[in-house]
Amino acid sequence: MGFCKVVIALGGNALQERGTPPTAEAQLDVVRRTCENLADINARGYEMAIVHGNGPQVGRIASAQEMASMVDSNLPVMPIDVCGSMSQGYIGYQIQQCLRDAIRNRNRNVPVVTVLTQVVVSEDDVAFKNPTKPIGQFFSKEEAETLAREKGYVMREDSGRGWRRVVASPEPKWIVEIDSVKRLWDSTIVVTAGGGGIPVVENMDGSLTGVAAVVDKDLAAELLAEEMGTDCLLILTEVDRVSINFHTPDQVDLSHITVPEAIKYVNEGHFAPGSMLPKVMAAIKFARRFPGKKAIITSLFRAIDALEGRAGTVITMA
Amino acid sequence: MGFCKVVIALGGNALQERGTPPTAEAQLDVVRRTCENLADINARGYEMAIVHGNGPQVGRIASAQEMASMVDSNLPVMPIDVCGSMSQGYIGYQIQQCLRDAIRNRNRNVPVVTVLTQVVVSEDDVAFKNPTKPIGQFFSKEEAETLAREKGYVMREDSGRGWRRVVASPEPKWIVEIDSVKRLWDSTIVVTAGGGGIPVVENMDGSLTGVAAVVDKDLAAELLAEEMGTDCLLILTEVDRVSINFHTPDQVDLSHITVPEAIKYVNEGHFAPGSMLPKVMAAIKFARRFPGKKAIITSLFRAIDALEGRAGTVITMA
Repeated sequence: MGFCKVVIALGGNALQERGTPPTAEAQLDVVRRTCENLADINARGYEMAIVHGNGPQVGRIASAQEMASMVDSNLPVMPIDVCGSMSQGYIGYQIQQCLRDAIRNRNRNVPVVTVLTQVVVSEDDVAFKNPTKPIGQFFSKEEAETLAREKGYVMREDSGRGWRRVVASPEPKWIVEIDSVKRLWDSTIVVTAGGGGIPVVENMDGSLTGVAAVVDKDLAAELLAEEMGTDCLLILTEVDRVSINFHTPDQVDLSHITVPEAIKYVNEGHFAPGSMLPKVMAAIKFARRFPGKKAIITSLFRAIDALEGRAGTVITMA
Repeated sequence: MGFCKVVIALGGNALQERGTPPTAEAQLDVVRRTCENLADINARGYEMAIVHGNGPQVGRIASAQEMASMVDSNLPVMPIDVCGSMSQGYIGYQIQQCLRDAIRNRNRNVPVVTVLTQVVVSEDDVAFKNPTKPIGQFFSKEEAETLAREKGYVMREDSGRGWRRVVASPEPKWIVEIDSVKRLWDSTIVVTAGGGGIPVVENMDGSLTGVAAVVDKDLAAELLAEEMGTDCLLILTEVDRVSINFHTPDQVDLSHITVPEAIKYVNEGHFAPGSMLPKVMAAIKFARRFPGKKAIITSLFRAIDALEGRAGTVITMA
């Protein structure tokens, strides 16, 4: 094996299947299948930490409170950072339960644990000036105006389907609980920085305050991989390989690209913002930080093949 | 100092003030004050793990989903175990954020981290035959009947104010993530088994399945203290001392009782179920398990005095 320590970023499809109801039971079924794949990776000898997304979940948590608060003042809306912490609880619980089972079924004994994780972002991050990340349900224009006026939400028209709240997606600067993750890493599979981490800013006195934001989970995974000095950053998504000219007759699936090539493709606009672009950006950041190490983008099902050089898109410095 | 390792169980008043709105912001204010006291304990040299309650929080999380689900089928109700995991996220986040600050303000550097925790209960626990723990909001008799019929909830009339869902409060058997808590303990303040832990049952094949239940947090704290072999179990509540003949002219506040004395008072009915009784039961269990060690019941504000023998109610084997 070329390397053995890996941070794994799980895409939304690892938690929820398109077209199925967004119940905890349906999610548990998908998580259970995902954990079979993760347990296979672990059984090949890789030490791993897991970073999951939380976009749909944090949206539904916020929306449920928004709706309930209209009916009952005893059920207030929680701030987005708190919704994020709840989503770490929800998703982390399901992963640690299912992954424990899947690992035991392979006659292995590796503890799995979720560490609630805060990620510090900068108050001066330009993302706060232009919030882009939609959260929760759609509203009518009138409702949106009321929410903007009464609660200070930033509301934006979204793809002709109505108005949604948007929050900033600032860059993660550091992981508050990194010491605990490091301490557990050798013996334990740690689920951490879920949903990109609970976003907080550091005040002048060093104290932390939650903010209304959602950190990109691929960038948080990259930061974790940097801090841990892992051999590999493995970003799992719906496709087996990154493509240029995606969904055109000229589509080319990439098996290996260098950082300069990746940057060229980014500049040519091959990768969709909010989809493949943040994954490629995270991969570039990792490969640049550690020349000689590799970032990989692939699907859950090709993960082992990709780790062993037979699949996926590998991004390296040179 | 007589001892240095302590499991601290936090009562509901450590998280929420009576009569204040149940917002995350109001809770954060109370948690911040609580964490000042906890940081003082830590600064005296005690190593600690923290177990918090979650009754009102898990109820509101469940209620918000219940209400939202009536309006929008995309916002389904989550099972009680998932609501419990969300409450661990919510409360754990606030404690780890505030306690980190309070500890830093005392010029100390002790990481604080929340470990999502599952607690195994027995499917055969008699508690499942007679659910007693109310969860969430009040319903009319008609609504209660509909919920019982359509969702299989057990509904019970509650103190003349309406009908509420009740779930079982089974005994905790073991803590799934105990290895990770042990690994962190020496260097780190661990927030664990929040709300008594996410309740799961162990299946024949050793896999785990969440159940609709709420584990008593004092009993979970006791189990943790047993597993960790701590020097002390410290149960914090609203009063400085346990009393017999509470709220009568014959009230006597107890400074030290032995296990036999405590059992006698329990049998005489001095302690209210769902209030002081589970605390005394947890204290009895710990003191009996470790003759020579002590359980203490006191208020947050007298905690240091109690640890040093000047306040609180101490329960020992003999």
